[in-house]
Amino acid sequence: MPAASPLTLDLTADSVAITQAICDVPSVSGDESLLADLIEQALAGASHLEVIRDGDTIVARTNLGRERRVVIAGHIDTVPINENLPTRFETEDGVEYLWGRGTVDMKAGVAVQLKLALELTDPIVDLTWMWYDNEEVASSLNGLGRLSRNRPDLFAGDFAILGEPSNGQVEGGCNGTLRAEVWTTGLRAHSARSWVGENAIHKLAPALAKLAEYQAETVEVDGLAYREGLNAVLVSGGIAGNVIPDEAVLTVNYRFAPSRSVAEASAFVTEFFDGFEVAIVDSAEGARPGLDDPLAQQFVRAVGAEARPKYGWTDVARFSALGIPAVNFGPGDPLKAHADDERVDVPQIVHTEVALRAWLTGATA
Amino acid sequence: MPAASPLTLDLTADSVAITQAICDVPSVSGDESLLADLIEQALAGASHLEVIRDGDTIVARTNLGRERRVVIAGHIDTVPINENLPTRFETEDGVEYLWGRGTVDMKAGVAVQLKLALELTDPIVDLTWMWYDNEEVASSLNGLGRLSRNRPDLFAGDFAILGEPSNGQVEGGCNGTLRAEVWTTGLRAHSARSWVGENAIHKLAPALAKLAEYQAETVEVDGLAYREGLNAVLVSGGIAGNVIPDEAVLTVNYRFAPSRSVAEASAFVTEFFDGFEVAIVDSAEGARPGLDDPLAQQFVRAVGAEARPKYGWTDVARFSALGIPAVNFGPGDPLKAHADDERVDVPQIVHTEVALRAWLTGATA
Repeated sequence: MPAASPLTLDLTADSVAITQAICDVPSVSGDESLLADLIEQALAGASHLEVIRDGDTIVARTNLGRERRVVIAGHIDTVPINENLPTRFETEDGVEYLWGRGTVDMKAGVAVQLKLALELTDPIVDLTWMWYDNEEVASSLNGLGRLSRNRPDLFAGDFAILGEPSNGQVEGGCNGTLRAEVWTTGLRAHSARSWVGENAIHKLAPALAKLAEYQAETVEVDGLAYREGLNAVLVSGGIAGNVIPDEAVLTVNYRFAPSRSVAEASAFVTEFFDGFEVAIVDSAEGARPGLDDPLAQQFVRAVGAEARPKYGWTDVARFSALGIPAVNFGPGDPLKAHADDERVDVPQIVHTEVALRAWLTGATA
Repeated sequence: MPAASPLTLDLTADSVAITQAICDVPSVSGDESLLADLIEQALAGASHLEVIRDGDTIVARTNLGRERRVVIAGHIDTVPINENLPTRFETEDGVEYLWGRGTVDMKAGVAVQLKLALELTDPIVDLTWMWYDNEEVASSLNGLGRLSRNRPDLFAGDFAILGEPSNGQVEGGCNGTLRAEVWTTGLRAHSARSWVGENAIHKLAPALAKLAEYQAETVEVDGLAYREGLNAVLVSGGIAGNVIPDEAVLTVNYRFAPSRSVAEASAFVTEFFDGFEVAIVDSAEGARPGLDDPLAQQFVRAVGAEARPKYGWTDVARFSALGIPAVNFGPGDPLKAHADDERVDVPQIVHTEVALRAWLTGATA
């Protein structure tokens, strides 16, 4: 890192100002170096932190010999900008918002983490902060995944918090996801003599009927209700307007509760489409919420939040896979993530900062 | 036309030799000028014929004052060549074939017509011979269609014969055809929260189930049994692997007996998919076989053929629309039309020639 960069990031500013500053430094996936430089530099002088860099991922941790260690992480990349930078403030129905790319997903959460990382020299638990690159792109590029391969030792911990937007509530675990292709085959023929052929599209009928009738389950896992979903997401078949189709394919997405493994979910889908050729093309394990863990329960109470299930897949699953209970806790409405009118509710930033500080300093423990 | 072309076509040769000669003059749709020139020139000296040219369509007719007039037509274009020219003879299981593009569809039929056009100076009916361009491409380019707009007077007649391959049998009329799009709509949502959306692909289920169960009718028209067909030919829907689709479309092809009009067929399909948004995107009227007409019945008896229904749509429908009974009668297996191994059974060429000559000269009347 160039030591004499004219640009610096002051983490003693308030968390809203830090949010705005780090949003106005664009960091679309693959282009996070400048922001990673700023973070590394801003923390370099903090004597309570050991700062480690892996690519554009920055890790800062305390080594205070506390009984327990908490990992707190957030990604620093965003999806592409669409005329929604620089940020600006706007007020609607009396609520102040910071508008712009990254404000929700997830620089407000990162700003709170950065501020507390520098400020909390004497937390009640040891802390491992992680700010990582390439979360919004292919899983193979994910900075947290890379770090877990390069430095698995850094993942030691008793509890993990991801700053993903959760409206300032605690969202535990996440559903797993699986995509399967359901194939039918037939016999091609000219449609003027259709009885010579065998229609592969018609053969999809029972699969679609079963999907249309299916009532997805809601599964309780560690006290949270996970709503599942089994849906056709793509369908295609046919050669031309005068040909009986000999092949059709239905792509199905199954979102399953974290109490099921990918293997169990695959078996369910294969059985569901019994009689069809089924290929599992893509899958990711879910993550149990881990809210039965005492540290997690104490955290939920301390921050005064309601525990909810997370439906979308997030990096909490990586911690879950390592046996570390993990939750999402961050400012911002997840429905505004990736939206062109992405904007974060300013009071939620402050609320998250206050709640996290209180818990980490034992003020609410 | 250049009067002094070094290339000439001798129509006193036998019909098999003429077939070979006109196949070896390539005439893929849009490139029929040379063959049209040769035909025009070969008939120019025949005093019993009035020769008329419209683009690359040649008409030759007798004006003998006969009580009845028969129109005999064939298209001179072919589908693209695929390493299947020049022609060659081959023998399989003791049957001699002429192999190559156009041999079946439909230069063998045209060769028989050309030979008889020149030879028959005193037929028992007046004859209007038509050899036309661009049958294998978009209907708007069809030479017979163009001629009917430019010279409707030439279509006067009591009966029409198209030389389309019919294995030397008489195929009467043709089914109509109609394409419809069946649309479903829903509400887009992230598939992690599928209950917020409404799945348009699932909504296709009852349409496909109905198609799969449907038993197409066989309808008797003028003594021939027309087998219908109602089939999905294309299906598509979906945005991405993690999005609940808000739109899906099923394209359906209905082949209907010539006793039904396009309007009736459209009403049937719209009613069949009651509750769906249905758009008729394409249609063509069928053609009644016209085999209840005395001249047609006499023709079938005379050529010693079996009358069958034609399933695919052919230009006989253009004559039918003008109120002229019309049939297909030509050498060659229609299943070999457009095939890379297109080849005509040589004895069928000779049989067609002999049968047609006998009828037109009154030898079998």
